[in-house]
Amino acid sequence: MEAKPGDIVEVVTKDENLKGTLMPSATGSIVVKLDSGYNVGIDQKNVKEIKILETLKTEKSPEYKMPEAKGLSTIVILHTGGTIASKVDYKTGAVVAKFTPEDIVKSIPELRNIANFKSVLVSNLQSESMRFGHYNLIAEAIVRELEHKPKGIIITHGTDTLHYTSAALSFMLENIDLPVILVGAQRSSDRGSSDAAINLISAARFIANTDFKGVAICMHASTNDDKCVILPGTKARKMHTSRRDAFKAINATPFAEVDYETGKVNWINKNFYRPFASFKLMPIDEKVKVGIIKTHTHTQPEDIAYFGNHKGLIVEGTGLGHSATTAFDEISKINEKSKAELAKIAKKGVVALTSQCIFGRVNMNVYSPQKELLDIGVIPGLDMTTETAFIKLAWLLSNYPVDEARKMMIQNLRGELVERTEFEEEI
Amino acid sequence: MEAKPGDIVEVVTKDENLKGTLMPSATGSIVVKLDSGYNVGIDQKNVKEIKILETLKTEKSPEYKMPEAKGLSTIVILHTGGTIASKVDYKTGAVVAKFTPEDIVKSIPELRNIANFKSVLVSNLQSESMRFGHYNLIAEAIVRELEHKPKGIIITHGTDTLHYTSAALSFMLENIDLPVILVGAQRSSDRGSSDAAINLISAARFIANTDFKGVAICMHASTNDDKCVILPGTKARKMHTSRRDAFKAINATPFAEVDYETGKVNWINKNFYRPFASFKLMPIDEKVKVGIIKTHTHTQPEDIAYFGNHKGLIVEGTGLGHSATTAFDEISKINEKSKAELAKIAKKGVVALTSQCIFGRVNMNVYSPQKELLDIGVIPGLDMTTETAFIKLAWLLSNYPVDEARKMMIQNLRGELVERTEFEEEI
Repeated sequence: MEAKPGDIVEVVTKDENLKGTLMPSATGSIVVKLDSGYNVGIDQKNVKEIKILETLKTEKSPEYKMPEAKGLSTIVILHTGGTIASKVDYKTGAVVAKFTPEDIVKSIPELRNIANFKSVLVSNLQSESMRFGHYNLIAEAIVRELEHKPKGIIITHGTDTLHYTSAALSFMLENIDLPVILVGAQRSSDRGSSDAAINLISAARFIANTDFKGVAICMHASTNDDKCVILPGTKARKMHTSRRDAFKAINATPFAEVDYETGKVNWINKNFYRPFASFKLMPIDEKVKVGIIKTHTHTQPEDIAYFGNHKGLIVEGTGLGHSATTAFDEISKINEKSKAELAKIAKKGVVALTSQCIFGRVNMNVYSPQKELLDIGVIPGLDMTTETAFIKLAWLLSNYPVDEARKMMIQNLRGELVERTEFEEEI
Repeated sequence: MEAKPGDIVEVVTKDENLKGTLMPSATGSIVVKLDSGYNVGIDQKNVKEIKILETLKTEKSPEYKMPEAKGLSTIVILHTGGTIASKVDYKTGAVVAKFTPEDIVKSIPELRNIANFKSVLVSNLQSESMRFGHYNLIAEAIVRELEHKPKGIIITHGTDTLHYTSAALSFMLENIDLPVILVGAQRSSDRGSSDAAINLISAARFIANTDFKGVAICMHASTNDDKCVILPGTKARKMHTSRRDAFKAINATPFAEVDYETGKVNWINKNFYRPFASFKLMPIDEKVKVGIIKTHTHTQPEDIAYFGNHKGLIVEGTGLGHSATTAFDEISKINEKSKAELAKIAKKGVVALTSQCIFGRVNMNVYSPQKELLDIGVIPGLDMTTETAFIKLAWLLSNYPVDEARKMMIQNLRGELVERTEFEEEI
């Protein structure tokens, strides 16, 4: 039997024997986490033998259903991994967590009064490893649950790309007729300061007690443990690396706040998604040629030309709707070459402009350089974040022809585009 | 005489005669702004003749000195263009503004009681066109003024890349012994709602009334016209496309607020730059091979391989210190290939990791995937913004060998790295 990451092993080399937890390694060397907490990397050619002292206990079952309480609706929890599921990561140091789907539900007794829970393991990934293919896995898992008509679905997810996934599911689950709430945690569940339980309980209460439909995010409203916030799936973003209130609504208001003490839902904005026809799963093509370029003061024409064969490109510009594309003097002449490269891509595919600013709207009509971008076929990203615009573009190009995708980029499909609001000063 | 952008012209074609302002055009066609405000593009081959009705009045002089008032110190204003200097842009629609350096000073009588002003035109660019070469032009203009020992220097600048320039000047002006304050405006000076005058007056008062040294930004503190904020040059960022209070301190506090009514300076943080030796201009190489890649959930190994010949690369990761580089399943296997490409670049050059989150710190020791990045030589960007890390890396590689640059990336040189503060929750 070959040793797997998470196993307790003894690695025998010609010089020494090392005991510890076998770690996943991408470099080809054998990495062992010693009891001291240190990781030791050993060149494979020096390893004589790896003895397995204790095999990793893996998931007993990928699916778990709690004993049912009468009169309560059912909520399905789809686990995808991340800090919220990293209870065991910290103990063993292993990234492949000994995580069983019932763990979280069992460890949070408050949940039992809110609903019946069914728990399904979809993946076990830190969210920085999530890719388009995972969105399809999650969406398919949701579709499988739909036939059982649950009250709603909670997706536990790492926080790094949670807003990418929430945007992806918003577009993919056309006419979804129930709430799909993504929940993450900034502190792992085995820590006293963990936000996992409060975020999960608040999401469950929101599902149980409201008629919300569509995709949203439930995370801490502030660094206090008193309230969670329900954020629109297409208009939110991780805005802090470590704070528990890292997720913020961008160019939008939260849908609601959930008071942890009282369980009360305070609506802020009831303008949520309403299905307009029958449900349809519209996947994202894992091979679609879309990319993001963050432009800056040293962007080279080659940087843009690299995307020459892309079907879609999001250009994160520097401000209201600019990107350096106009020559005003000798030095900035290079920007004109960049524009020429961009024009080539926009002619065949879809190029949309977003802003580094995150907050505010891309307006391509105020200054001449932006008008020149409009002239070469660049589409304004309006008030979408770079991430939402990117996911929307990937999804559009997976499901519609280029011409159609261009038009739909500036149409509001899932609440991703909001009319001018109090978030903007008039310009 | 050939017609130039800004000239009032009559364009004669076989079908019609069009009167208006000749606009700059990068597409090769003749663009005329009609009196109605509309731009009309005319294919050059259809143009029979362009009659100049009125030539553009260009700058009378690149330098202007107000009549001197005794007992007041001198502040030099270096004009680089942007919205703050776009008074005439709106009237004629021409991007090449009829801007004379004295215009702003003359139009703001309040300035005369604060200091004597000398005004120098360095460039006339919207800041999205600014490139490394412009930083050198600005820095050289500053050096020319230093010998006259002014009390301080104000740089008027477009807002889009103002924070890139403030970071660049922070590093380039080693041991600068006076205040260099960058001032922009979100509304042009000819509009009632313009923030130009208040920002300029506040910057002038801050220079005249304090002993501040180093590079900072002066912009509106809120959307009220009552206060301006003095932000650290290496720790600020444009965070809204259109609001007047678009600039925020990132992972830092402002140095001070300036009350517009009373002129009072309220210090928040006096921990500003202190020169430690004699002044030295350290330019940024206009040809240095540095880039930024914004990673996402569809990043391809080729996207990273593109930077294979770069000397420096900033990887904007997704969270606390991740970037998708570890394979946990079939789908995310591609991330391992990305890591291999990154390792190649990090071996020869400098690769630093920042975060999409903007707020918070890149910590590469919490999760295993990040440790793997450390192992291949990726340096944490710590609490620097992507933009400051990028400019710092470009500057380091312009002035130091690779080995030295690697070490200096994580050393605080200009206040760009701050100790753990109240801006972070403990993790």
